Amino acid sequence: MKRLFLLAFALASLAFAQPATHDPAALRDAALAGDTIAWDFAEGLTTEVGQRLAGTEAEARGREWAMRRLRELGFANVHVEPFELDVWVRGEERAEIVSPFPQSLAVTALGGSGATPARGLQGEVVGFDSLAELEAAPDSAVRGRIVFIGHAMRPAQDGAGYGAFGPARFRGPGVAARKGAAAVVIRSAGTDYHRNPHTGGTNWPDGVRAIPAGALSLPDAEQLQRMLRRAGERPVRMRLTLTPRNLGRRQSGNVVAEVPGTDPSAGVILIGGHLDSWDLGTGAIDNAAGAAITTAAAHRIMRAGRPRRTIRIVLFGAEEVGVFGGTAYFERHRGDGNVVLVSESDFGADRVWRAAFSLAGADTALADRVMTALAPLGIVRGRDRANAGADLGAWAAAGTAAIDLGQDGTRYFDYHHTPDDTLDKIDPAQLRQNVAAWTAMLAVAANWPGEIGRTEPRPAR
Amino acid sequence: MKRLFLLAFALASLAFAQPATHDPAALRDAALAGDTIAWDFAEGLTTEVGQRLAGTEAEARGREWAMRRLRELGFANVHVEPFELDVWVRGEERAEIVSPFPQSLAVTALGGSGATPARGLQGEVVGFDSLAELEAAPDSAVRGRIVFIGHAMRPAQDGAGYGAFGPARFRGPGVAARKGAAAVVIRSAGTDYHRNPHTGGTNWPDGVRAIPAGALSLPDAEQLQRMLRRAGERPVRMRLTLTPRNLGRRQSGNVVAEVPGTDPSAGVILIGGHLDSWDLGTGAIDNAAGAAITTAAAHRIMRAGRPRRTIRIVLFGAEEVGVFGGTAYFERHRGDGNVVLVSESDFGADRVWRAAFSLAGADTALADRVMTALAPLGIVRGRDRANAGADLGAWAAAGTAAIDLGQDGTRYFDYHHTPDDTLDKIDPAQLRQNVAAWTAMLAVAANWPGEIGRTEPRPAR
Repeated sequence: MKRLFLLAFALASLAFAQPATHDPAALRDAALAGDTIAWDFAEGLTTEVGQRLAGTEAEARGREWAMRRLRELGFANVHVEPFELDVWVRGEERAEIVSPFPQSLAVTALGGSGATPARGLQGEVVGFDSLAELEAAPDSAVRGRIVFIGHAMRPAQDGAGYGAFGPARFRGPGVAARKGAAAVVIRSAGTDYHRNPHTGGTNWPDGVRAIPAGALSLPDAEQLQRMLRRAGERPVRMRLTLTPRNLGRRQSGNVVAEVPGTDPSAGVILIGGHLDSWDLGTGAIDNAAGAAITTAAAHRIMRAGRPRRTIRIVLFGAEEVGVFGGTAYFERHRGDGNVVLVSESDFGADRVWRAAFSLAGADTALADRVMTALAPLGIVRGRDRANAGADLGAWAAAGTAAIDLGQDGTRYFDYHHTPDDTLDKIDPAQLRQNVAAWTAMLAVAANWPGEIGRTEPRPAR
Repeated sequence: MKRLFLLAFALASLAFAQPATHDPAALRDAALAGDTIAWDFAEGLTTEVGQRLAGTEAEARGREWAMRRLRELGFANVHVEPFELDVWVRGEERAEIVSPFPQSLAVTALGGSGATPARGLQGEVVGFDSLAELEAAPDSAVRGRIVFIGHAMRPAQDGAGYGAFGPARFRGPGVAARKGAAAVVIRSAGTDYHRNPHTGGTNWPDGVRAIPAGALSLPDAEQLQRMLRRAGERPVRMRLTLTPRNLGRRQSGNVVAEVPGTDPSAGVILIGGHLDSWDLGTGAIDNAAGAAITTAAAHRIMRAGRPRRTIRIVLFGAEEVGVFGGTAYFERHRGDGNVVLVSESDFGADRVWRAAFSLAGADTALADRVMTALAPLGIVRGRDRANAGADLGAWAAAGTAAIDLGQDGTRYFDYHHTPDDTLDKIDPAQLRQNVAAWTAMLAVAANWPGEIGRTEPRPAR
């Protein structure tokens, strides 16, 4: 009911909703030619703060840095909304083949990994080429051993490889633990051949105690597979040392900033990315880039005049370790009743190549208008419904309209969750293209003269 | 005089020097189409032994592995010629920015680095963009500080960037030490943007005590430069922890194997690569590949029948840490008087693109014949004289004829001396092209009916 009332109010205010200065094409082309705000934001955050593991003082410094920058840029209502979470931190990490081919392998602990004794844990390695193969194995093949899980993830423009092969990380260690494994090492959920393993969270099923769980780089995973082949009947024995610790409850928070709209009844557009990162790199593509792109685009709208709708940027905390910031924000604000559209940037800094929409059936004209503004950037229209990413996905699932500006993910999983996620992986020209696409989309959506309606709810991903 | 006598003898035996089975084109094409020996050698050595730091038990296992493999392949006179050297091993390595932007940087110790206290050494960083800039600085700008040395090395097909910018590593730490620096970190002598710093030896001038000397990866070197810019007047303070140790005298050795020739008076062709590697990777391109390529090519000649000249493979020990194996071999055998041609493979596993020669003036026909055999592989003739690489360069400098089969080095310094020097960096097709080029060259040179003369001596590089 409230929504219908807002609709009536919105229609009444239609006449003065679209400032002439918010021409999407002009704003888009200006961003493409010369945006510097996004680069400066990404460079500053990654250089002056560096890694920003959720719940640590580094993440807190990241919030302070972001609030200072957002205020300098002139945004309104800059503040932090705190929440708490359990914090896990990395310790020592070593994997050594003891026999028959003594040598070290490059390993890193998965988020949530259990710990080995300080001096490590030694066991025989049993290898599986896929999660399915592990699942099919009898417990007796696994019990007391160090399980290796391989997979065949390849680069894909839309990132589909992560969904298909990522479960080796998300679920594999839990499966191994349930079968009685002493520890587990997976082939990193990544696509590069550098000896920087990919970390990332793993999930333990209810009632299953966390065992030590690490990821090997691809060169090391293949080295281990060669060893298993060449060893023949001889057991391959590994000493694994992973000593992460749980620090208990710590504070994180979401940083919020706004471009105030002229028409409170037209609703709020919620955009953003996440401010935390894994601890190995400086979180440049994951996700200083997303924070930078959405900030720069909102700033370009703000400089051009007040839009009809308020644009709210949320830079979420603690995404990597379990979407704590996104969940906290949704729980706190789902009842506000004023969020009409959500859109998140959290897939690197390479060019936007595809847009997807989740809009009410009556709102096809909005999607068409957005596509008209995006097409000169080489962006195509996707067939799937927008899902709004990890931090804003709950909104889309609950029926809030959503737009995804999908980035090219071909090289994303070369760097994702590795020490290599650093500023040099951001291509300034592609970053500007992102800002241009976001600016064009926001120029259309924030000034859209009609209502932006709700869609059918659907199961959360 | 001995040489002239050998010449007369060689001419006398000309008639039966060239078995019909040693057709260079046929041998070349067979290698290109189907060589598996080189790959098996490289895979076996890097998988079953892994890293092979000079003077360690791992390098000794490498010698055992190589001798076993060379005997299995049917080579004659397989043996090791031992020598001793001082051994340096890596310890802990950490670089942390203390202020104003606290975070960790990826660092590795350079070979021969001095050690910090176990808990590290803290100092203000003073940055120089080049070795020349450091050299021009007054001692007062350096004294007691941690010196950072940058450079502008870029990829080059012939590896020229290493000669031009490598001195930041070879000499830079010594220059900093002489000016009173507390420690030094350089931008790695490399061309990749992965957070795997490049190690490699550094040289301390006489009378200068070794200080802690590390290399930052390129992303970290650029991060430090950004910090120095963004810090303005604030000092950038680093805590550097490098705890390498000197183990004293240890044994290394050169592994030798032969394809016996039919004509002892025609002299010996000396080929090979080095068996040791740095300790960070598994030494696949540096230099399991060179050992594998020369072994496979010599084996193809051997299988085709006895060549006129003996081909001797030497897999040198302790090249990385100061060419100890090459020097020991030269000192021991320079007086033998029977080595007529030297050629080394030590620049990775990418395709041979250029051949260079250092031959007596009368031997242009030999070079022409070699080029005829190489041209179908897309190999061009270089203008510079062959220098025969680090381990065999002393022979070429002393006047022994030499042929260089120059490999494409465009991506060599992406991996050189890093953890990323692993088997996956070898492209099997390009490896076969190397074997094909070496087989063709050896088929021509080992059966060359004339004498292979000596050249003018020149200064060693």
